[in-house]
Amino acid sequence: MNEPLSVWGWGHASKFPPTEERNALAEQVGMMLGLPGLSAKEPVALDDVEMPAPRIEIPASLASFCTIDKAERARHSYGRSFPDILRGFQGRYDSPPDIVAYPTKEAHIEAALSWCSEHGVRLIPFGGGTSVVGGVESRRSDDSQAVMSLDLTKMDRVLSVDETNLTARIQAGARGPVLEEQLASQGLTLRHFPQSFEFSTLGGWVATRAGGHFATLYTHIDDLVSSVRMLTPSGVWQTRTLPASGAGPDPNRIVLGSEGALGVITEAEVRVRPKPRWRAKANVHFTDWQQALDAVRSIAQSGLYPANCRLLDAREAMLHSVSFDQSHVLLLGFESAHHNVESWLQQALAIAESFGGTLPEPPKVTDAQEGNKARGSQDGAAAQAWRQSFLYAPYLFNTLVSLGVLVDTFETACTWSQFPALHAAVIKNVRGALKEQCGTGFLSCRFTHVYPDGPAPYYTFIGPAQEGREIEQWLAVKSAASQTLYDFGATSTHHHAVGRYHRPWYAQEVPELYLQTLQAAKETLDPAGILNPGVLLQDPKDPNPDNLL
Amino acid sequence: MNEPLSVWGWGHASKFPPTEERNALAEQVGMMLGLPGLSAKEPVALDDVEMPAPRIEIPASLASFCTIDKAERARHSYGRSFPDILRGFQGRYDSPPDIVAYPTKEAHIEAALSWCSEHGVRLIPFGGGTSVVGGVESRRSDDSQAVMSLDLTKMDRVLSVDETNLTARIQAGARGPVLEEQLASQGLTLRHFPQSFEFSTLGGWVATRAGGHFATLYTHIDDLVSSVRMLTPSGVWQTRTLPASGAGPDPNRIVLGSEGALGVITEAEVRVRPKPRWRAKANVHFTDWQQALDAVRSIAQSGLYPANCRLLDAREAMLHSVSFDQSHVLLLGFESAHHNVESWLQQALAIAESFGGTLPEPPKVTDAQEGNKARGSQDGAAAQAWRQSFLYAPYLFNTLVSLGVLVDTFETACTWSQFPALHAAVIKNVRGALKEQCGTGFLSCRFTHVYPDGPAPYYTFIGPAQEGREIEQWLAVKSAASQTLYDFGATSTHHHAVGRYHRPWYAQEVPELYLQTLQAAKETLDPAGILNPGVLLQDPKDPNPDNLL
Repeated sequence: MNEPLSVWGWGHASKFPPTEERNALAEQVGMMLGLPGLSAKEPVALDDVEMPAPRIEIPASLASFCTIDKAERARHSYGRSFPDILRGFQGRYDSPPDIVAYPTKEAHIEAALSWCSEHGVRLIPFGGGTSVVGGVESRRSDDSQAVMSLDLTKMDRVLSVDETNLTARIQAGARGPVLEEQLASQGLTLRHFPQSFEFSTLGGWVATRAGGHFATLYTHIDDLVSSVRMLTPSGVWQTRTLPASGAGPDPNRIVLGSEGALGVITEAEVRVRPKPRWRAKANVHFTDWQQALDAVRSIAQSGLYPANCRLLDAREAMLHSVSFDQSHVLLLGFESAHHNVESWLQQALAIAESFGGTLPEPPKVTDAQEGNKARGSQDGAAAQAWRQSFLYAPYLFNTLVSLGVLVDTFETACTWSQFPALHAAVIKNVRGALKEQCGTGFLSCRFTHVYPDGPAPYYTFIGPAQEGREIEQWLAVKSAASQTLYDFGATSTHHHAVGRYHRPWYAQEVPELYLQTLQAAKETLDPAGILNPGVLLQDPKDPNPDNLL
Repeated sequence: MNEPLSVWGWGHASKFPPTEERNALAEQVGMMLGLPGLSAKEPVALDDVEMPAPRIEIPASLASFCTIDKAERARHSYGRSFPDILRGFQGRYDSPPDIVAYPTKEAHIEAALSWCSEHGVRLIPFGGGTSVVGGVESRRSDDSQAVMSLDLTKMDRVLSVDETNLTARIQAGARGPVLEEQLASQGLTLRHFPQSFEFSTLGGWVATRAGGHFATLYTHIDDLVSSVRMLTPSGVWQTRTLPASGAGPDPNRIVLGSEGALGVITEAEVRVRPKPRWRAKANVHFTDWQQALDAVRSIAQSGLYPANCRLLDAREAMLHSVSFDQSHVLLLGFESAHHNVESWLQQALAIAESFGGTLPEPPKVTDAQEGNKARGSQDGAAAQAWRQSFLYAPYLFNTLVSLGVLVDTFETACTWSQFPALHAAVIKNVRGALKEQCGTGFLSCRFTHVYPDGPAPYYTFIGPAQEGREIEQWLAVKSAASQTLYDFGATSTHHHAVGRYHRPWYAQEVPELYLQTLQAAKETLDPAGILNPGVLLQDPKDPNPDNLL
């Protein structure tokens, strides 16, 4: 876990492939996407980056846990969206944080909050830094205000586990693998696996209402939190650990989704579970998109609650090497620590088959206590391809950026009734924007989560970038996507958060009175307005608050 | 549905039993509880009630939907807690609302909100009037301020149903049976059955975070709401209908639990479902309380998600005529519109049996499409007794009050780890208070809902009331209960809401900063402070804000 992180790109620095490997990929990608002539460029070395000097000195009171190290300031300048990786790759750090803080205890955070409040220094809570919405960006809208990036990752302990309640109190800076490793020693797991899992933190998940592993039932981190602890400039917000309550508007739900604008989340008590013993899964192919939709909706409304119920459209299936025959593929899976789930899978498959679904491979049923002697096929090539591709996708962004490719994803949720019109409009408008900006492009769709009343569609778009115009191209496509989601009744984000990129549409999606209420909450908790300005709420000092970048 | 409602008691006036019937019950109750010498008294007739005259006239602009009718003012004076029914029975209406409004459209509500804001008239949103926490009480803390009770029950239409999404848009004033009847015409059901179902309204459920039919999984109305519409003095709060979102703190969750203090809820889009076809149920008996607890916890953590999983302790089982042999009884049931749930029940029963549970009657499995030709026994006497008793219990309050019996319930939620100490303390402290106040008393417990991390215990207490001291007795026992819940880490309410009775403990249970945030929200939405003052938040004009009554 101590392997050095990339300053500019996703994940560990060592995983950025050498030039020849990237050039090999360039050819593949070029063929697949019809983008000939791609070739690998090299990132600007940190030594060659010119970075503005810090505008403020670290005070003695915070010196023990703060730094102005250039690499740290660079790494904390951005999240990991396309424009973030691009700017990092090109060595463009116009607006780094002045100071990076690594608190190791709450007293550090309290000291930082009060020093920043007193001196008008903006404070940006930073977990894994995996935001793809501009959520941790130290943008200098008001050049007179210095910025501190507050990195929580040194507060990463599982503080206690209650095996009777199946809950654990965990520090907010714990990354996915760090907390899972500690829980595993007691046979337990949080099983919250967003795609960013390797680097994102519990505090980041809570702040952004992250979506997790399960396709149905309790999967947003919202559902897994039984209490939270948040430090604010006005004091401590600690809720009571409860399985449920009906007492007033839920005090956890104000923290969930607060995106660092209301306080610094330091701990949460979360619901854990034993590792699953039984698993049953199958991949179902559909030739007809509407039939695939009807099947997924019917399964989502059946009360069977599959752990996995991901529908990949034919392009997405191809992109992830799951299928190359133009089939739409439904990845269906059940799991349980308590009971064999084969009959659950059989009932879901019966639904899928009634809508024309077919199974190229037999279902796979495993019992971990029988040493994984699977009945049915071993994990098929398709399922393996998906898992590998899912985990590797964020790394691929680094490579694609180095090849001059424009690549990004966006996601949402809407009702089943709204989805067909939304999907048609997304295809028309986003492909249209790609064509206009890039000449050509690729757009695919999958469902990451499904609910009885609607799906959470997730789109990937790819096109050739034009050197010097990448940001402009991205802004046009991204804006077309967000505007379409808004126009067709969908939400600005299902699990990527609002940040800066979605704020202009979020502000229209929610009631104006809600925004005023949120502003009033902010003024109560953060009277000096230092916490992550411009995220969720307009930054009053930003002359161009509706600019995404 | 047009049968006249009781002015002072629960439900329809016609259901209050004649004197001889109540005297017969007096003997039964007396034997069961060891309370000899009970006899039926008669309620004070409305004609004999002296009621303060309205302090303000209905303005012409609101005349079409407002009244100062004496019976209406009396019926809107209180909810239906023990002190409410008692005061009504005794004809004590010291503090009725000055005006009762029956809006039939949103324009009426907007006119009422703006007239009340302008004239400093307090406005209390009123649904079924079934609050047991002082949530709809027109208390005159500041005698200069007139009070309007705004009764929503004339706005009770299902406005639209989406059979693809399985959602329905329903007006807030629809009572349980009224909305179910409209949904039933399309084969759908909300299946939200709080004990108050017959009279309570959708808007009331949303405002109080009502707990529903299902013992596990999505059961709080919170989980069933996909959007809400609320009118406030500052304008409209309308959220977007979405299956899920990760965009900022959830704007629905601020309305959920707002108890009329932030606005008047007028509509909600809710998740409905087909009526269940398959049912499987059984009653499991336990002689050992700890084994019963372990069984219920294990089922709650199994991922089987029973629709019913109510544990009655031996006293509760006796009270509801479910069992008289000192057994603790677990009512276990599964239901589905999609699949036969017999194997689900069998797996849950295997857990129960592994903890020493026994089945006096075989499980009952039914398929509605086979004309309810049940396998196994017909619904046993025990199950019938429970259902009848559950629905009749609120009516019983009327009779018990007329017999001079002190009776009330309180409920909470806590973790499994905390429950044994909490339960022991409740028994000690509440029985102690009963003994001190009443000389003797009865206390029973059931779980209404269970979660992987803890149960929602529900207590009933009964004791002999002393004429003229009933309120004092009740205050002592109720306060002992609330203080014990607070001291042992439980919540002040799982589904009865905060209202006025729980506010002093609620204010300690939640973060002080949360209360400040809620206050800031109130000032944003209700600048004149007219909405239900004293509920959730302290009434600044109340000289004794911590008095429950």
